[in-house]
Amino acid sequence: MSQNSFKTSFRVTWVDTDAAGVVHYSNYFRFFEKAEEEFYRHLGFGFTDFRIKGLWFPRVEAFCQYKKPSRYDDLLEVEVSIQDLKEKALKLGFKVINKETGDLLASGHLVVVAADRQTGEATQIPPHIVEKLRAFTKQIL
Amino acid sequence: MSQNSFKTSFRVTWVDTDAAGVVHYSNYFRFFEKAEEEFYRHLGFGFTDFRIKGLWFPRVEAFCQYKKPSRYDDLLEVEVSIQDLKEKALKLGFKVINKETGDLLASGHLVVVAADRQTGEATQIPPHIVEKLRAFTKQIL
Amino acid sequence: MSQNSFKTSFRVTWVDTDAAGVVHYSNYFRFFEKAEEEFYRHLGFGFTDFRIKGLWFPRVEAFCQYKKPSRYDDLLEVEVSIQDLKEKALKLGFKVINKETGDLLASGHLVVVAADRQTGEATQIPPHIVEKLRAFTKQIL
Amino acid sequence: MSQNSFKTSFRVTWVDTDAAGVVHYSNYFRFFEKAEEEFYRHLGFGFTDFRIKGLWFPRVEAFCQYKKPSRYDDLLEVEVSIQDLKEKALKLGFKVINKETGDLLASGHLVVVAADRQTGEATQIPPHIVEKLRAFTKQIL
Repeated sequence: MSQNSFKTSFRVTWVDTDAAGVVHYSNYFRFFEKAEEEFYRHLGFGFTDFRIKGLWFPRVEAFCQYKKPSRYDDLLEVEVSIQDLKEKALKLGFKVINKETGDLLASGHLVVVAADRQTGEATQIPPHIVEKLRAFTKQIL
Repeated sequence: MSQNSFKTSFRVTWVDTDAAGVVHYSNYFRFFEKAEEEFYRHLGFGFTDFRIKGLWFPRVEAFCQYKKPSRYDDLLEVEVSIQDLKEKALKLGFKVINKETGDLLASGHLVVVAADRQTGEATQIPPHIVEKLRAFTKQIL
Repeated sequence: MSQNSFKTSFRVTWVDTDAAGVVHYSNYFRFFEKAEEEFYRHLGFGFTDFRIKGLWFPRVEAFCQYKKPSRYDDLLEVEVSIQDLKEKALKLGFKVINKETGDLLASGHLVVVAADRQTGEATQIPPHIVEKLRAFTKQIL
Repeated sequence: MSQNSFKTSFRVTWVDTDAAGVVHYSNYFRFFEKAEEEFYRHLGFGFTDFRIKGLWFPRVEAFCQYKKPSRYDDLLEVEVSIQDLKEKALKLGFKVINKETGDLLASGHLVVVAADRQTGEATQIPPHIVEKLRAFTKQIL
């Protein structure tokens, strides 16, 4: 459902491209993270808040499937959803769309773990964050 | 079996790191590709050869699991293997190891398709390349 | 004079930072270019137009002085001005400001040459582009 | 004089290139830093040593002139020299050469300051480091 996702848009910059004339595959992971950052900001918290709380969100898994290439100056829309929400971990889903043509360019996910910055151990995602994230979880039933 | 993989080593540079003091997760995909490039060079062909033949190797899938962080100046070893070899596609497996501690830092894969540069259509991987790649295929028996 | 410059804003992303906790020095050149791209778009032309006209804008010189560091999530403002406008070349000036504190973080320039994409030779900047750029030239008188 | 410089070689990777088919201009600053890192390693100290001593080497100025483009798979040689050595600062000179053709591709410099990591204040470069660096200083006589 559309209310369960967050969307953000930006343009492909020249440095994103490679000698094939298209966006380098590794840059989609930069796009995912950029959308993730704006998603957190939209929810009212940022990495800075986490920092104060001594939290860290290392990635444990990253995945992307590439459907169609994107090129310099393309206007992209990245859609973020929560595919899974556990006590100590989070699976974020991403879709990258060419906003002008509507074509799906890439889709993928990141699995992110909450960790204590001191000990490095996995820790619980704070309840007020869980609550906000839950609204973006895909309704299963 | 060890003869079925290719290994290459390089150091983490400062620009690879992020404010967490560790290598940014997207850079492992740069490491994968760097190892892939050296693997092709080791086999005696490069992107330049493919170019002459009008071939292109776009990525259709990228995956990485992160086990332990790496830091500035760490000496990494990336191991490349062929996990699957089809008529028109190739699945490359990667392991990133801290060469000094022996720790496995990350593992993942890339699925790469052979494409005609003019038409963009998937095309057969040339037989002499298939032959060389086959030596790096995991024996299934 | 303020009407002679173009300004654009964006946030520092996580991948821009390095293990010192600050934006890596090379990324200011990405910021310069991003601002340049938006400046051209603001003027009504992009790299794509240049492409159609067989034009190319290779950089011949890049310079940056760093005054203060920037960190993840900082809101940056980049100001673009034309420091010099010749028949076949352009000197773009840049200032990077922390938009929240007003601090000047970095300043620098790019010298860009108009080149024919076929021959690679330096060529005249088209008159309609020169005209639009002239409005952003620093008044000397 | 040749004994006053340090040289290191590496190949252009695919991700270094942009849609013009050449190395993106910002990546020369990554090449400079990579050569700087290997130069320090060659001298027997690395960023890690500096870290232990509570030292930091922020950049205060970066400059590059671009002469000829480089492309994927080109073998580059980067030459590092000391252009100026002061009590608290260092000016490193760089030349990037296409090792196969001998063409000078780019040249530039970095001005780097020694800083105390706690206070952020400029501080003296430790004498044993100054001594080693002096051997790479251009003889003015």
